[in-house]
Amino acid sequence: MIVTLLTDFGVADYFAGAMKGAVLAVNPGAQVVDLTHEIPAHDVEAAAFTLLAAYDAFPAGTVHVAVVDPGVGSARRPVVVAGGGHLFVGPDNGVFSYVCERAEGSCVFHATESRFFRVAVSATFHGRDVFAPLAGALSRGVKPESLGPLITDYARLPFPTPRRLDATTLEGSVIHVDHFGNCITNLPPLPGTIEVGGRPVTRGRTYGEGLPGSPLALVGSAGLIELAVPGGRAADNLGIGVGAEVILQSKTGVHQ
Amino acid sequence: MIVTLLTDFGVADYFAGAMKGAVLAVNPGAQVVDLTHEIPAHDVEAAAFTLLAAYDAFPAGTVHVAVVDPGVGSARRPVVVAGGGHLFVGPDNGVFSYVCERAEGSCVFHATESRFFRVAVSATFHGRDVFAPLAGALSRGVKPESLGPLITDYARLPFPTPRRLDATTLEGSVIHVDHFGNCITNLPPLPGTIEVGGRPVTRGRTYGEGLPGSPLALVGSAGLIELAVPGGRAADNLGIGVGAEVILQSKTGVHQ
Amino acid sequence: MIVTLLTDFGVADYFAGAMKGAVLAVNPGAQVVDLTHEIPAHDVEAAAFTLLAAYDAFPAGTVHVAVVDPGVGSARRPVVVAGGGHLFVGPDNGVFSYVCERAEGSCVFHATESRFFRVAVSATFHGRDVFAPLAGALSRGVKPESLGPLITDYARLPFPTPRRLDATTLEGSVIHVDHFGNCITNLPPLPGTIEVGGRPVTRGRTYGEGLPGSPLALVGSAGLIELAVPGGRAADNLGIGVGAEVILQSKTGVHQ
Repeated sequence: MIVTLLTDFGVADYFAGAMKGAVLAVNPGAQVVDLTHEIPAHDVEAAAFTLLAAYDAFPAGTVHVAVVDPGVGSARRPVVVAGGGHLFVGPDNGVFSYVCERAEGSCVFHATESRFFRVAVSATFHGRDVFAPLAGALSRGVKPESLGPLITDYARLPFPTPRRLDATTLEGSVIHVDHFGNCITNLPPLPGTIEVGGRPVTRGRTYGEGLPGSPLALVGSAGLIELAVPGGRAADNLGIGVGAEVILQSKTGVHQ
Repeated sequence: MIVTLLTDFGVADYFAGAMKGAVLAVNPGAQVVDLTHEIPAHDVEAAAFTLLAAYDAFPAGTVHVAVVDPGVGSARRPVVVAGGGHLFVGPDNGVFSYVCERAEGSCVFHATESRFFRVAVSATFHGRDVFAPLAGALSRGVKPESLGPLITDYARLPFPTPRRLDATTLEGSVIHVDHFGNCITNLPPLPGTIEVGGRPVTRGRTYGEGLPGSPLALVGSAGLIELAVPGGRAADNLGIGVGAEVILQSKTGVHQ
Repeated sequence: MIVTLLTDFGVADYFAGAMKGAVLAVNPGAQVVDLTHEIPAHDVEAAAFTLLAAYDAFPAGTVHVAVVDPGVGSARRPVVVAGGGHLFVGPDNGVFSYVCERAEGSCVFHATESRFFRVAVSATFHGRDVFAPLAGALSRGVKPESLGPLITDYARLPFPTPRRLDATTLEGSVIHVDHFGNCITNLPPLPGTIEVGGRPVTRGRTYGEGLPGSPLALVGSAGLIELAVPGGRAADNLGIGVGAEVILQSKTGVHQ
């Protein structure tokens, strides 16, 4: 069984390694896979987006551990989510809320069965002591419902939905800048004109189209409108970052 | 079966994670191994060199996916290479040409059998949608020749061979600066004098030899002449980088 | 069987990848797991601490390869350590000495049986040519004692134990600054007052306690006193780094 790890721990410390050990201590046969450990520190929204964009490339039954957990050791609950054929383990701080929104019929359980935790649970590292052992147990076939009660009052982060200005106009924003400087927006893949800073951006289909150095709007691999610059970095070229406003004008309307 | 991944995606985004998922979705029993995701963006030569230096440490039958792919979504072909007992999958942009040159009798196939691709292929992420699924299939025993026709007009990058100035002199260059600041050249491991910027560099065998802070030329683990500085960084100490000229004077001649 | 890797190689070069290949070439069924490749270059103490903090999260029988090896190619010996139910492979430069101190009854073997090495051993990359193949062999069940003679004169690094100033006072220091800027000290988890730069620091239990921006001393996940700042970076806030003095005053005494 496959267990993926998503954290804001970086890879220089012992944290990611210790989590892998804690999964394997429970299930030595698990295959442990790094999604990423480079979520910006404490950025739960970024973790929620990255998980949403990556999880369903994996086979059904995969267990995904997500630990971006500024509230570690406080009263926030550990949760297990069953949704879209996958399982998720982490803190109840909204990190799974985009997945829950996408995967209809998701069930969230408050993981109270501490016999599945590490024998000694520290106050500062639930990734190793709570979430990784739970993932190990799930990957061995322990059922989510046996880990604690179903809850409905779990933490939700509002998905950063674009705002409908009128029948043909959406006001979106950049929600992520990737390794190549591409700016992923929250705008759906509708036809129409894309505007940044009041200026239209050419629509395209691939990163190599158009003129080198000239911005392009295309549908990215997360299924959202993305700004790119052939041979360059859109974020630098356009001088924008997360939060920047991007407008979609669609003649066919923007009924969401 | 083992599947390795080599990309310029970095590890902060969902890209590497989604590729791992896409391999495992086809073959949940594959062991997915990161070679590196830190190839400089769009640097096909660097990817070709890194792959050449790493692939044959792996057991025969390993499937290597290499995705440095500035032309994603354009007409460049997806290819599968069988060479040296290993299998390779990626874009036809020269990323496998050093391997093909080294591993005699390599066969290159144009992967046209789209039933092995992801059901929905995006225009921007063939790593996830084309190459990873192909690698998953190969790791399950699908034969390269069943993925498409043999081709001979695949993209080739000229290996950066040193220039023979006369019977005893080679003009080489730095082709890679590693994590420790060591400068790997394209010069073969011949005896003789090594010169950088007109000044001879002491020959040595290991990184710890000679005087701290004093440059050393040795045969590195890729089988090429390498410049190092005990207790320091050769690139900084010598003030050189990729492309810098390095001369080999060999009394025994430089017949290549 | 599980093989973990800990190096100072970074992840941009072919080094970590080639080591994985070399383990898998000997034991294709091993699961190879990255602990970290981001130990500061040549920092054997940092490697020893990271290994100590991570290894026992893994199941008994795990093989840990640690290669921070400024003396590669010199006379320093390759060693295999059996301790605490785990196995360790690497250079005899002290990288395993904290583990040996913690795990009573550890045995250290000088790995002389070169038939377990790579056929051609380079002078510059024993990670690939010596240590990874040894780890592959151990993960297949080869016994440590069959790899060479037991030795007792292995390299030892003194653990950076705090100094006892009087019956109630320990003078410790920061031994590691983590990804979040938390400062891990070498002070044991005793009650009492913690002082940095002559000023007391509030004691707490979790990272989220106290006032944002106000330093906190807590027991970290390595079982040592740690300085943190809610919503900030303790190292920056306190203006300290590795080596900074931290005082523990304990009314109950500091008998170690």
